Amino acid sequence: MRLVTYRYPSKLGTHLGALREDGAVLDLAAADPALAGGNMPAFIAGGAAALQHARSAVESAPVAEGAVLCAPIPRPPKNVFCVGKNYREHAQEFAGSGFDASAKEVVPEAPVVFTKPATAIIPTGETIPVHLDPTNSTDYEGELAVVIGHGGRGIRAADAMKHVFGYTIVNDVTARTLQHRHRQWVLGKGIDGFCPMGPAILTADEVPDPSVLRVITHVNGETRQDAPVAELIFDIPALIAAISAGITLEPGDVIATGTPVGVGIGFNPPKFLKAGDVVRVEVPGIGVLENPVG
Amino acid sequence: MRLVTYRYPSKLGTHLGALREDGAVLDLAAADPALAGGNMPAFIAGGAAALQHARSAVESAPVAEGAVLCAPIPRPPKNVFCVGKNYREHAQEFAGSGFDASAKEVVPEAPVVFTKPATAIIPTGETIPVHLDPTNSTDYEGELAVVIGHGGRGIRAADAMKHVFGYTIVNDVTARTLQHRHRQWVLGKGIDGFCPMGPAILTADEVPDPSVLRVITHVNGETRQDAPVAELIFDIPALIAAISAGITLEPGDVIATGTPVGVGIGFNPPKFLKAGDVVRVEVPGIGVLENPVG
Repeated sequence: MRLVTYRYPSKLGTHLGALREDGAVLDLAAADPALAGGNMPAFIAGGAAALQHARSAVESAPVAEGAVLCAPIPRPPKNVFCVGKNYREHAQEFAGSGFDASAKEVVPEAPVVFTKPATAIIPTGETIPVHLDPTNSTDYEGELAVVIGHGGRGIRAADAMKHVFGYTIVNDVTARTLQHRHRQWVLGKGIDGFCPMGPAILTADEVPDPSVLRVITHVNGETRQDAPVAELIFDIPALIAAISAGITLEPGDVIATGTPVGVGIGFNPPKFLKAGDVVRVEVPGIGVLENPVG
Repeated sequence: MRLVTYRYPSKLGTHLGALREDGAVLDLAAADPALAGGNMPAFIAGGAAALQHARSAVESAPVAEGAVLCAPIPRPPKNVFCVGKNYREHAQEFAGSGFDASAKEVVPEAPVVFTKPATAIIPTGETIPVHLDPTNSTDYEGELAVVIGHGGRGIRAADAMKHVFGYTIVNDVTARTLQHRHRQWVLGKGIDGFCPMGPAILTADEVPDPSVLRVITHVNGETRQDAPVAELIFDIPALIAAISAGITLEPGDVIATGTPVGVGIGFNPPKFLKAGDVVRVEVPGIGVLENPVG
């Protein structure tokens, strides 16, 4: 099942939906009033019982005509966790670019984790506002993201997959010059609109092994990134264990797992995003996160 | 006026209060039902009108007998923004400690900003759980924190003070070894309980010039930090301008402005926190944020 958050144009409020194969959005609350409210973290906190309601509802739910997709989790409980330098060849291209002020080593010995605030999150279809980067060095980073279900602290890697509610896509858009200038990365990566997320959350039951997923990024139709999640340096259980070692994860928290080789700064000269471009991040099974640049 | 969030033991829900000189908590909603709800960011979003309600209510509000202080903003809209290396002598002691993996330069050329999630926030009186730092390198950092009132993006330094709702105290507790090991700082600084905040928000009208405030930190009665906010490298208007350049600030967002010289790693050997210690951060006018260590 692919779960979405949606709204109607010119109306307040969000709703819980399911994304059908043909792209239609199903109105789950119309089929089951227990699914009203439209708050994805609250729904996820409902656990197996809430998920069973959604599974039943999807069988009879009507199409939400005129629905517009929001990010599946527009306001996670915490800033989105993101992981830097988590694919070997990307770590090498980043080191070679000269934009990495964070350490001398190329491949990190421990996960490099930073955050992006909710104000950065936009849905598929919305414009990435590159004009907010005065340094004209905006780059894309297609990533698989994990959505936490049952929360906790001190989650062991061996138990981590039980805490995964599902998977979505994040484009960790980055103002490279600001990322470097401010040393810590939230200012270069947390800019409004620099966290496209979506289109849907693919529930974990449909992904027995996330390492077989692929992250594919196109810019204006040109393939820039195409890598299997199996190439992660710190895999999903390792990331959940590292973050939850000290931090209590909560239902609806999002962890973007890192980007593969092929970002704009990996080219010489760099291929930064500019107004008029279209960035399309695809993870087959989850869907397509496509954003114009403006 | 010093505003607080409080609760009653063994009861759900939080309430909006005012802290009297003698330490008593006043129940504002009892004097004015418009102040019910107990959600500080929502109250702050009410702007000048809400503040006027609180000012009037404080004249007749009864004491909330048995009230227990929460952090004034237990769940800000975003992770708490924090600023690294923002006092010159502290930047020097940090560089000298060998724990800084973020850059070669001692004094940063641009604000170094990172975040701590809401799960790290605890009120005055609650225990800092050093047992969650397996590297036994937990350090204190007393700081003045700014609470955002009217939000916005692209706030100019000249206008920044109009966006300040008030001031509180944050102890930016840090697991030094994890801060260094993970390069980016959220894992070393975002641990549960590692963001004591409080006791109150001193409203901005009582602070014509925040640079005259002092940050004083004691550990077990020994003075470790004592510096005027005037010594900030990037002052409050500069920080608000730098963060809001790309990120929309919202009512109730919190910016901890950085710590002065005198943290534990500034000593040789380092004076890390251990169970049984008591850390007391004071900003005269705001109050005392005191936390046992356990």
